[in-house]
Amino acid sequence: MSPFTGSAAPTSRWRHLRLDRTDGVATVTLARPDKLNALTFGAYADLRDLLAELSRERSVRALVLAGEGRGFCSGGDVDEIIGATLSMDTAELLDFNRMTGQVVRAVRECPFPVIAAVHGVAAGAGAVLALAADFRVADPTARFAFLFTRVGLSGGDMGAAYLLPRVVGLGHATRLLMLGEPVRAAEAERIGLISELTEEGGADAAAQALARRLAEGPALAHAQTKALLTAELDMPLAAAVELDASTQALLMNGEDYAEFHAAFTQKRAPKWRGR
Amino acid sequence: MSPFTGSAAPTSRWRHLRLDRTDGVATVTLARPDKLNALTFGAYADLRDLLAELSRERSVRALVLAGEGRGFCSGGDVDEIIGATLSMDTAELLDFNRMTGQVVRAVRECPFPVIAAVHGVAAGAGAVLALAADFRVADPTARFAFLFTRVGLSGGDMGAAYLLPRVVGLGHATRLLMLGEPVRAAEAERIGLISELTEEGGADAAAQALARRLAEGPALAHAQTKALLTAELDMPLAAAVELDASTQALLMNGEDYAEFHAAFTQKRAPKWRGR
Amino acid sequence: MSPFTGSAAPTSRWRHLRLDRTDGVATVTLARPDKLNALTFGAYADLRDLLAELSRERSVRALVLAGEGRGFCSGGDVDEIIGATLSMDTAELLDFNRMTGQVVRAVRECPFPVIAAVHGVAAGAGAVLALAADFRVADPTARFAFLFTRVGLSGGDMGAAYLLPRVVGLGHATRLLMLGEPVRAAEAERIGLISELTEEGGADAAAQALARRLAEGPALAHAQTKALLTAELDMPLAAAVELDASTQALLMNGEDYAEFHAAFTQKRAPKWRGR
Repeated sequence: MSPFTGSAAPTSRWRHLRLDRTDGVATVTLARPDKLNALTFGAYADLRDLLAELSRERSVRALVLAGEGRGFCSGGDVDEIIGATLSMDTAELLDFNRMTGQVVRAVRECPFPVIAAVHGVAAGAGAVLALAADFRVADPTARFAFLFTRVGLSGGDMGAAYLLPRVVGLGHATRLLMLGEPVRAAEAERIGLISELTEEGGADAAAQALARRLAEGPALAHAQTKALLTAELDMPLAAAVELDASTQALLMNGEDYAEFHAAFTQKRAPKWRGR
Repeated sequence: MSPFTGSAAPTSRWRHLRLDRTDGVATVTLARPDKLNALTFGAYADLRDLLAELSRERSVRALVLAGEGRGFCSGGDVDEIIGATLSMDTAELLDFNRMTGQVVRAVRECPFPVIAAVHGVAAGAGAVLALAADFRVADPTARFAFLFTRVGLSGGDMGAAYLLPRVVGLGHATRLLMLGEPVRAAEAERIGLISELTEEGGADAAAQALARRLAEGPALAHAQTKALLTAELDMPLAAAVELDASTQALLMNGEDYAEFHAAFTQKRAPKWRGR
Repeated sequence: MSPFTGSAAPTSRWRHLRLDRTDGVATVTLARPDKLNALTFGAYADLRDLLAELSRERSVRALVLAGEGRGFCSGGDVDEIIGATLSMDTAELLDFNRMTGQVVRAVRECPFPVIAAVHGVAAGAGAVLALAADFRVADPTARFAFLFTRVGLSGGDMGAAYLLPRVVGLGHATRLLMLGEPVRAAEAERIGLISELTEEGGADAAAQALARRLAEGPALAHAQTKALLTAELDMPLAAAVELDASTQALLMNGEDYAEFHAAFTQKRAPKWRGR
């Protein structure tokens, strides 16, 4: 646990998602399989708060985001969210849309890699959640669809118009966000939207294996790699090089760097401590 | 028509290009087929002014940019432009080069998607016009060539050094802009420079079909998707997420979002109004 | 030679690398083949100082960076660098890491294209040197590995977390920097990390051919293309378009642009002067 905790007690019970923890790996499962894991207001809020809480801890070194049942996540629930927003006033609409954006920022800014395990549909907000993750481990049934214009909204939802061009380039991103057409696994792999393509039904296991591997490795180095990838999208080259220099100087004072050298010298595998 | 028009009357006659309008789709045709649609000073100025005028209207919901004859556009005319610039003074040279850049900014910033229909050569300024479009619908004869260094100029012309790395990545962009070599349709598709590859001779019809589909859809949602894709290339993540939130809050007050929900509830197709 | 030289005399002897110069092409060879060209403190400092010196000259129009022996460069030397840094204090660690970053900035900012000729391993700092080059000419034995997390450090070393997402997209970049896995030539070509794939054993000759071609061409146009590609990664569209306009106005006053027009009119090949 970080020493810098305030008065608020951590929550032990998450009502809108399922949380499992094993040896440094947190697995968050969207678990409304009868609704293709459509997101509710509560699910967004839980994702935001859970990522904030896990970010204050020391124990989580990798997080898997998965969906139960036939698909990953069909996006915001048409009844519970679209219907409800139609009677909201402007302040409430801003509150809601800021919350969904905060979830994406939390995924990009939490100090551990996030792995989306995708099978079946990843649509709307579900596609953006997967996009915001550091890794997308997907099986051949995976189908990404940025459906926002199909419901009359902007394709730039929850940072999608920022993230997608930086993942697949502006040409593909324009096509996907403007038209809302599905991207199947083969195309997703070809354009760089998938990190690892598995056998059918293999996404969850492969995501867990990757998470374990990351959690057993030099976790602070992974966390800083993620932080720099996130930050340097928004920095000029000179500043990025300076940030790299101070980050490496910091990590060269760390335990894992010394451990690597000791292990190398002694011709053994390093025992990573994650600091 | 936008209520915010000044004293200047719109122009009804464009001398340096052909404009056709049908049901919300504007088609701009470069029509100097004997010169492979080489651009003249007048053509650049007309493109700039036409895009400004159409941006003030409400009637255009998608624009197709096409070339008549054997190719899309061979770029600036060697006689009429390169020759003429050799006797210009510095202020005139700046004026000319700013005008060409304004055309690209107008393509990126106009409030409707722009579809380049490319067959045959798209060279020099013609390649950049296609690059600036939101969609490049091309047939197998398409050939993009950023020829600027071949005439002794910088490959960064009209925003190409900004746009091309964001579409195909810095590695490919460096190669294409530095060497000015042609990129044929197959490679263009592989590196993400083409949005849709059609059968030979099919680019114009496919571009029209895409434009019609966009014009019949939720046009304000498309316009905002384009605006956000353009703006968020230049914004940090946190600001992009905030812009997305306020844009969605705005569109959630719009007619098309309510229409989507009504249609979904009534199990019918939505009737988009574009607002 | 630039007229703007100070009191310091240029160095004629580089102890930590080999420099050959032929007709506007400089070839820098990492030449510790028994150590897979592992970089030492001296090699980093020589690369930094050599690039600064060549940037002040007028004679170099293209630079090839090559490795002698079985591979391109295995990165920082485990004994001489990792071992030594373990006993450095914070100021020394910052000094070292800033120096390595200065080498990358020098590669990106020098006024001539840099071509990495890659065969065999390009690992750690060697991978980033190749990444910073304008062209990566590689043969099928090439193997890029951003190994930093494998030694307990951040994958964002020497600007890698800035450059790699801009070359291959954020998804691939995250995977490569976080996991440190090797990227073989076929994958490197598929994701845009390689500019030109040659036959086995052909990288050096192809890199020399490309360098000669660039050196014999309009070198000032190439230099400005590179400068704009580098700068416009960090600029908004409007500013990029303005920079393009003033750059083209400048080059339209230059000799090579007039020479192109004269040659075109006279139906002969242009004789480029590089200014």
